[in-house]
Amino acid sequence: MLSPDSILSRIGSPADLKTLTDKDLDLLAAEMRAELLGVVGRRAAHFASNLGVVELCLALHLTFDFARDRLIWDTGHQIYPHKLITGRAAELHTIRTKGGLMGYPNPAESPYDLFMTGHAGCAPSTALGLKLGDEIMGRDDAHSVAVIGDGAFPSGIVFEALNHASGSQSKLLVILNDNKMSICPPVGGIANTLDRARMSKTYHDWNKRLKSLVPTIPLVGETADRWLQQFKDAIKATLQHGMLFEELGFTYLGPIDGHDLKGLRTYLEKVKAMSGPILLHVLTNKGQGFEPAVKDPVKFHAPNPFRKAKEGIVPLKVSSGETYTDAFSSALFDACANDPRVVVLTAAMCEGNKLQKVRETFPKQFLDVGICESHAVALAGGMAKAGARPVVDIYSTFLQRSYDQIFQEVALQNLPVVFCLDRAGLVGADGPTHHGSYDLAYMRVFPNMVVMAPGDRRDVGPMLDFALGHDAPVSIRYPRAYLESVERDAAPIELGQAEVIEWESDGMIVACGAMLGACVRAAERLHDRYGLHVGVINARFVKPLDRATIGKAIEEAGFVLTVEEGCLPGGFGSAVLEAANDAGLPTHHVRRLGLPDRFVLHAERDEQLAEVGLDVDGITAAALELARAVGLEFTDLGPASATEPGAASSNGDAHSNGSAVVAGSPSEK
Amino acid sequence: MLSPDSILSRIGSPADLKTLTDKDLDLLAAEMRAELLGVVGRRAAHFASNLGVVELCLALHLTFDFARDRLIWDTGHQIYPHKLITGRAAELHTIRTKGGLMGYPNPAESPYDLFMTGHAGCAPSTALGLKLGDEIMGRDDAHSVAVIGDGAFPSGIVFEALNHASGSQSKLLVILNDNKMSICPPVGGIANTLDRARMSKTYHDWNKRLKSLVPTIPLVGETADRWLQQFKDAIKATLQHGMLFEELGFTYLGPIDGHDLKGLRTYLEKVKAMSGPILLHVLTNKGQGFEPAVKDPVKFHAPNPFRKAKEGIVPLKVSSGETYTDAFSSALFDACANDPRVVVLTAAMCEGNKLQKVRETFPKQFLDVGICESHAVALAGGMAKAGARPVVDIYSTFLQRSYDQIFQEVALQNLPVVFCLDRAGLVGADGPTHHGSYDLAYMRVFPNMVVMAPGDRRDVGPMLDFALGHDAPVSIRYPRAYLESVERDAAPIELGQAEVIEWESDGMIVACGAMLGACVRAAERLHDRYGLHVGVINARFVKPLDRATIGKAIEEAGFVLTVEEGCLPGGFGSAVLEAANDAGLPTHHVRRLGLPDRFVLHAERDEQLAEVGLDVDGITAAALELARAVGLEFTDLGPASATEPGAASSNGDAHSNGSAVVAGSPSEK
Repeated sequence: MLSPDSILSRIGSPADLKTLTDKDLDLLAAEMRAELLGVVGRRAAHFASNLGVVELCLALHLTFDFARDRLIWDTGHQIYPHKLITGRAAELHTIRTKGGLMGYPNPAESPYDLFMTGHAGCAPSTALGLKLGDEIMGRDDAHSVAVIGDGAFPSGIVFEALNHASGSQSKLLVILNDNKMSICPPVGGIANTLDRARMSKTYHDWNKRLKSLVPTIPLVGETADRWLQQFKDAIKATLQHGMLFEELGFTYLGPIDGHDLKGLRTYLEKVKAMSGPILLHVLTNKGQGFEPAVKDPVKFHAPNPFRKAKEGIVPLKVSSGETYTDAFSSALFDACANDPRVVVLTAAMCEGNKLQKVRETFPKQFLDVGICESHAVALAGGMAKAGARPVVDIYSTFLQRSYDQIFQEVALQNLPVVFCLDRAGLVGADGPTHHGSYDLAYMRVFPNMVVMAPGDRRDVGPMLDFALGHDAPVSIRYPRAYLESVERDAAPIELGQAEVIEWESDGMIVACGAMLGACVRAAERLHDRYGLHVGVINARFVKPLDRATIGKAIEEAGFVLTVEEGCLPGGFGSAVLEAANDAGLPTHHVRRLGLPDRFVLHAERDEQLAEVGLDVDGITAAALELARAVGLEFTDLGPASATEPGAASSNGDAHSNGSAVVAGSPSEK
Repeated sequence: MLSPDSILSRIGSPADLKTLTDKDLDLLAAEMRAELLGVVGRRAAHFASNLGVVELCLALHLTFDFARDRLIWDTGHQIYPHKLITGRAAELHTIRTKGGLMGYPNPAESPYDLFMTGHAGCAPSTALGLKLGDEIMGRDDAHSVAVIGDGAFPSGIVFEALNHASGSQSKLLVILNDNKMSICPPVGGIANTLDRARMSKTYHDWNKRLKSLVPTIPLVGETADRWLQQFKDAIKATLQHGMLFEELGFTYLGPIDGHDLKGLRTYLEKVKAMSGPILLHVLTNKGQGFEPAVKDPVKFHAPNPFRKAKEGIVPLKVSSGETYTDAFSSALFDACANDPRVVVLTAAMCEGNKLQKVRETFPKQFLDVGICESHAVALAGGMAKAGARPVVDIYSTFLQRSYDQIFQEVALQNLPVVFCLDRAGLVGADGPTHHGSYDLAYMRVFPNMVVMAPGDRRDVGPMLDFALGHDAPVSIRYPRAYLESVERDAAPIELGQAEVIEWESDGMIVACGAMLGACVRAAERLHDRYGLHVGVINARFVKPLDRATIGKAIEEAGFVLTVEEGCLPGGFGSAVLEAANDAGLPTHHVRRLGLPDRFVLHAERDEQLAEVGLDVDGITAAALELARAVGLEFTDLGPASATEPGAASSNGDAHSNGSAVVAGSPSEK
């Protein structure tokens, strides 16, 4: 907690920094690190990346005046130090909790937060936009700064922005916060370029090498070619670390030490006086100031709560139970083992998608392309065309970056690419940038695309098997949640066939995906407490929809409630309405439950589900309202057992066999 | 037409090329150009780019065996020479017509067409995917080649693919088909790099300059810095044209002459024997072999039909009437004149969107970022945040590439960015890659987004004014069609308010956007011929939907037919069903007309509209069916006038005041 004696407690705004001595600033940096450590002692939060940018953040606020200059932190999970010195230190302990500070920049919190960021790579574009906008508004002298990590750097949009900035010749400062790793090991040419840059010596070194290479007699033919190649190599090996950016039209400076506050300030002052687009390459250590995090920055990217004790790091909360991510990871492992044509693609989410075992066991069947979702999908299209069976394993929210490639390179070509959309639905503490709200709506518009969602643990393996055996594109979405199992003789997966869990006459709940468990428990409560006979359908397919089964429910049941963890506009319920309308069926007794048409803020996932009415209480209440509306008669028999509200757990249902949602587990990116 | 004596007529497949002498190959190239000229004498088609790649296409097929090697033509409109020598010469005259050859690669036509391409920049990704897929399938020795233009090159996905390829070390050949222009003048650092490359001299030149720069005494401090900069500049100015790609890990070769068939073959043979990722920089002339096209390649990118006569180029078909594109171009011009905060952004579609006048008159309020749609939208977010009023003017189909930026950088931040979605709906001869089918479905899922579509000419100006005055994101979509005007006292545009054109009791047609004219004429025919009283609503807003007016229609009218030129899943009609369902209204008498859940092939736009039932005939038929279903009684009084089918024009309606669709007009990209 913030001590009233601390320097940090006196920093109401960045202006207060400017009165501090060098020594005070060093003390302040230490206090900031202590605050960060305090936060992650309480809950899962981004950690190592925040420790890494303390000095950079201070140097930026000391050099510029972001009350009028512009600062965008790309991806945004390294925003904590910035929050600490922009008037939010006293609230940092609330970060990532309902009603507390957001774990990303949030314009609603502070004028120093300009954009809510979360998806990687857009900062150079928005910073350039701010610069050009300021010029249009007559504020030509305002500086614009984007801070972007080396993990986000290979993202295509970064290249688009750098290319444009160099052409526009507007003044833009891009700071490459190079902590020598993205969440997964870096890949590709940019990574190699940065590797070389980091290893580069001073100009003396290449000066020496260069002189030895300059020929003293004119060269012709093959000799000249060879010499040319040698010369190119020599340049690449020594001088050329910034040439990629210089070639693009940027002035490149660096690499410089990102933990030397004085040095950073000197460079930033220099850069402030320069013109045109500038790339400042800053080397930082993820976890700087906390040895365990420096040693294992992947583990400490966004760790579960822990405390530091004599015996080392003590985890305070151990996650229990298997998640959908675990189940898909395991099913993908089996698929790789069974079929050498299967290749699993990820976009820097090897850890988040728990693919380490696949990567280690089947290195030829695993591909991490970095934060390049567009490329990943077009690449998968090519692989499928050649006969392989690519599985694109990307979070729902990040797959939005491939919308056009899903359209052109996969659906239009009708190629057998399987999409595994993890984190579909509400994601908890990461909040609105990370929810997977739209995938059902965006996937189902594409011809040829099959859209599925497993109802529970038993659907996972068979669904992936079905998808890999289907000769056309398939998407499978599942939430950031623990697995459940609904007791039944699970029917095999057949194209476009829903599974009837129980058929009842008063009403039918049509559950899309992992909402199944909560729907079954709601149906039980509707029976036990209200005497209503309500059945449940496990939809399994959003497209093609099981029009026969769902149509029959609409024809026969007193009411039909569709339940989905996706946006209501254009989602699963909308598909049901379309099907009913096409069949000429009435829908006055049909209602849709899903994500409302607004952004859901950060909170624990179960809090979010409750907020939008997608927990057992909410589903029960919606069903009761619908039953009332269609004139069904029922009485409240009162809580029958421990499963009822009041006596119930925070999840509204103590019966829940593993239905507790994942709270406080790591978020990536 | 193909002469039976020609060499071309003997080329049944690329294998037949290998028997030809150098002289025959030169004759063949000339014959191919004559064929291309013949095509554009008949209809609007891509022209200059096809003339430019004749030798490159021949050289590729002579060097590789694309029966097993892989070839992807990026963007795909330069595919005609490839079609000529892969067994389709006799059909080239059918290109871009219904049932004829597609104007892009089409796997359904030939095994030599691997991907249907149309959106730029994905070829390196798919080609790498094919290579990796072939490796997985045990075909390690198959070559993979992507041909990509300099216009597409700055697209972010290209960079993602090059970065990955260099990391993978798989053998991939990327051919940069550099015709020194994209459709609009090139922008940015890549363009400058290519400029330098084109001007570069041999190594002798830089060798000379280099020697004069190498210092003979050790340098320190400022002197050293200055020398270093000079040295960097010298390198950039001379040697460094390929260094950008070399830095990325590619072997760079070129630039070489793309019209020297022998030289091309020599280089390709050399490259074939090399390993790792290679970039071959080939210089071609757009329009090569046809002087008028060389002189004005923009005009001849995809010209209207013309013939070459003594007096010069004689256009055979002059487009008449004003299009929606014209109207928006003019409204944007006015907006720029009225408000200096307005900035119009385009992604290389300055010509397609007819923004030349805006660019020339308001250079500070116009920005072409090249084929970088993702960047364009994030940039617009930044500009809006700074107080400017950016208008993103991009075709519906290409804006798909910004889905994630529309979500994160605009909707989530609730910033006043206006999206003008040209070519929304069916686009005619360009076919399935270019239809704007999904925008209503993808725009309306985002919270804060207002989604509009003008019903006719009168809505255009007021709608843009409304959008620019609305302090939140707005999208406006309109088709590739001539403007119509529906007679009425047009109501002012108010948020979420539809406009009732006529209120009738038998049925109401709810028209989304430019379908309004056809709907009004269908209502007239329903009255004149069938005695039905059918009213029409101009929906104007898809979101927020006018729930009151449309709800009233559902409550009061005998039937309600929604009509939209967008995909049925999740589209406008779906929004109407959702609203009705939310209000507890019955929908047994509501039907939706729109684009079916399949890809609509190339044809004239009016043919496509007829095919999917979105012309006056189709709308009338759907309304009659619906009237029958709800039990309305009516009789066929027979054709009342010249407006009836049989007597009618190919558009199904001779009343049409300008409703003839744009046929055979240029397509870009």
